[in-house]
Amino acid sequence: MFSFSVTDCDGAARCGTLETPHGSLDTPVFMPVGTAGSIKGVTPDHVRATGASIILANTYHLQLRPTAEVVRDLGGLHTFMGWDGPILTDSGGYQVFSLAGINNITDDGVEFQSHIDGARMRLDPKTAMVVQNNLGADIIMAFDECPPLPCTPEVMRTAVDRTIRWAGACKTHHGRSDQALFGIVQGGLDVAERRRCAEALIEIDFPGYAIGGLSVGESHEEMVSALGPTARVLPTDKPRYLMGVGMPRDLLAAVQVGVDMFDCVLPTRNGRNAQAFTATGPIRMRNEKHKLDRGPIEPGCDCYACQTFSRGYIRHLFNAGEMLGPSLTSIHNLRFFQRFMARIRELIRKGQLATITDEFPIAAMATPRPDQEEHA
Amino acid sequence: MFSFSVTDCDGAARCGTLETPHGSLDTPVFMPVGTAGSIKGVTPDHVRATGASIILANTYHLQLRPTAEVVRDLGGLHTFMGWDGPILTDSGGYQVFSLAGINNITDDGVEFQSHIDGARMRLDPKTAMVVQNNLGADIIMAFDECPPLPCTPEVMRTAVDRTIRWAGACKTHHGRSDQALFGIVQGGLDVAERRRCAEALIEIDFPGYAIGGLSVGESHEEMVSALGPTARVLPTDKPRYLMGVGMPRDLLAAVQVGVDMFDCVLPTRNGRNAQAFTATGPIRMRNEKHKLDRGPIEPGCDCYACQTFSRGYIRHLFNAGEMLGPSLTSIHNLRFFQRFMARIRELIRKGQLATITDEFPIAAMATPRPDQEEHA
Repeated sequence: MFSFSVTDCDGAARCGTLETPHGSLDTPVFMPVGTAGSIKGVTPDHVRATGASIILANTYHLQLRPTAEVVRDLGGLHTFMGWDGPILTDSGGYQVFSLAGINNITDDGVEFQSHIDGARMRLDPKTAMVVQNNLGADIIMAFDECPPLPCTPEVMRTAVDRTIRWAGACKTHHGRSDQALFGIVQGGLDVAERRRCAEALIEIDFPGYAIGGLSVGESHEEMVSALGPTARVLPTDKPRYLMGVGMPRDLLAAVQVGVDMFDCVLPTRNGRNAQAFTATGPIRMRNEKHKLDRGPIEPGCDCYACQTFSRGYIRHLFNAGEMLGPSLTSIHNLRFFQRFMARIRELIRKGQLATITDEFPIAAMATPRPDQEEHA
Repeated sequence: MFSFSVTDCDGAARCGTLETPHGSLDTPVFMPVGTAGSIKGVTPDHVRATGASIILANTYHLQLRPTAEVVRDLGGLHTFMGWDGPILTDSGGYQVFSLAGINNITDDGVEFQSHIDGARMRLDPKTAMVVQNNLGADIIMAFDECPPLPCTPEVMRTAVDRTIRWAGACKTHHGRSDQALFGIVQGGLDVAERRRCAEALIEIDFPGYAIGGLSVGESHEEMVSALGPTARVLPTDKPRYLMGVGMPRDLLAAVQVGVDMFDCVLPTRNGRNAQAFTATGPIRMRNEKHKLDRGPIEPGCDCYACQTFSRGYIRHLFNAGEMLGPSLTSIHNLRFFQRFMARIRELIRKGQLATITDEFPIAAMATPRPDQEEHA
């Protein structure tokens, strides 16, 4: 039901095939994020048309609303979302530590308050498994502790200890053989802690390993410095998933050290804010200069938005507050990320990955993080 | 380039075929409204999939933003909106009198202030034609005066006088032979004034006639009492278009007195507010009772939303504030109106139009106007 095989390599970068109960997919792969069970503003047929082969949904958000039990009773996540391809759910760990109000962290789990209505809730290895079993994704994640960066060595050590212990408990409590459970490597920027965590998880033995706790505010260089040594420790015959990343430059750097899977809200979040990705860098669709531009968002792009509408029209949609502006720019951005990853796969197969920045100069750019640009 | 022929009749109700430069369509027809150049929240491929054969865009809104000149420079309305089928634009008359701040009405035209930014603007027969020629729709409308109901007989008489005079001026100033210019019959609930207006417009001679100034707050019975005598005066070989209507019961009543064309924002406006149309009456998608409902919005509906998603999911989308809730409910509603009109056409051809309320009980219901229900 679940298998992974590496098909081509270019240095540490590799192409692979991942088999899941809802179909197979090629790696390296970018997963669009459907936080609350919907890729924001884009119908699943359009998501599919961007080339997405697997999508992600957030356990934390779905457990808060409508709850995993409701999703289960409505047929499970695939039926619920109208997506018959592979789905991955995260464990809720990251959101508990970044969005919720923490009441108490113990070695057993986390008590927190919903960021929506303040309701008191609890996540621990067992509940994270019950919830994700109810949601029914093809790939699910162990419950981890994701400490904020920077933090003291003691805090990090404790978080890694818990992450290891919780990973074992998750494996014990995981109740569905049709779902692949991945462990998550924590350890912040401390390479020794990362290695300790990875080795302990490998000892427990998972069908795939995620690298969490990066892209949380550190620099690109810091991220890469922690990522490379971590990826090298992980088994070559299992998929490696870098959570919550990211910008094209980050994706490329991660692929180059052997990461296979990615997810990020950038295509849709930036799309809603009128920022479109192109191979030569991001552009602002609200800009006056697009007013009379009859060309597409990105010349040569084969997405629905670029094949159908002009920059001038999309600028008008944002100016007029029309929902279609965010939707079309999100569609373009989703397709942009898929085109970027597809080209990465092609170049790995040819042993020419290093040339990707010729076609996608954005992958060499220290492009501004969206929040910085949005608030500039 | 433009022609109309009646193919079947059932009493005063009739089926017809309308030929336009962007394709032919069957009447009676319902036109979804793309106010600012977009059917709100629905991509054109999904609009097309609902069965829409012609759509409407609002001259007033497009002239305010981005202006008709910009639409022209971006390739005209069809290219701008990504809609290669027939398009109709209204004249802006109704919006000027209902949305804008009126500064001055004279026999020459109207000076008003934009409801968006207060900019001073002017519409008169000549500018209404220049603007609509720039927009480039297949069917365009004469500039009319649409007085509020109720109003004094003097106000109505003056409005009808101006509407007639302006219609003649519009015909003079209309500069594109590939656009069909329709006259608009005003006269409120005064049947004699309606008849006087219609006869004067017929004298001027248009390829089609609209009935304006109804569905502006009067009762269903009042509307029908003004509509029937007006429709009977209009030439049988020209299309008749009832502007801004409306609820299924209103559509049926109008079809039964020989009206061929309709437009209304109801499918999308109500859809955004979580109200779904069904044959047995409207339903509220936010209702708690849909929480665990695995069925579609409307059993038997062939729309994308009903074929793909459950009521429970769509309720969740509205609860979670996801854009897809309004989009999917709008798609369903647009399809509902197209299914209703398609069935009306079938039953006219069979001479069985009176049986439509067996299949669509909603067409016999004094369904609440959306604003009443929304604010209830």
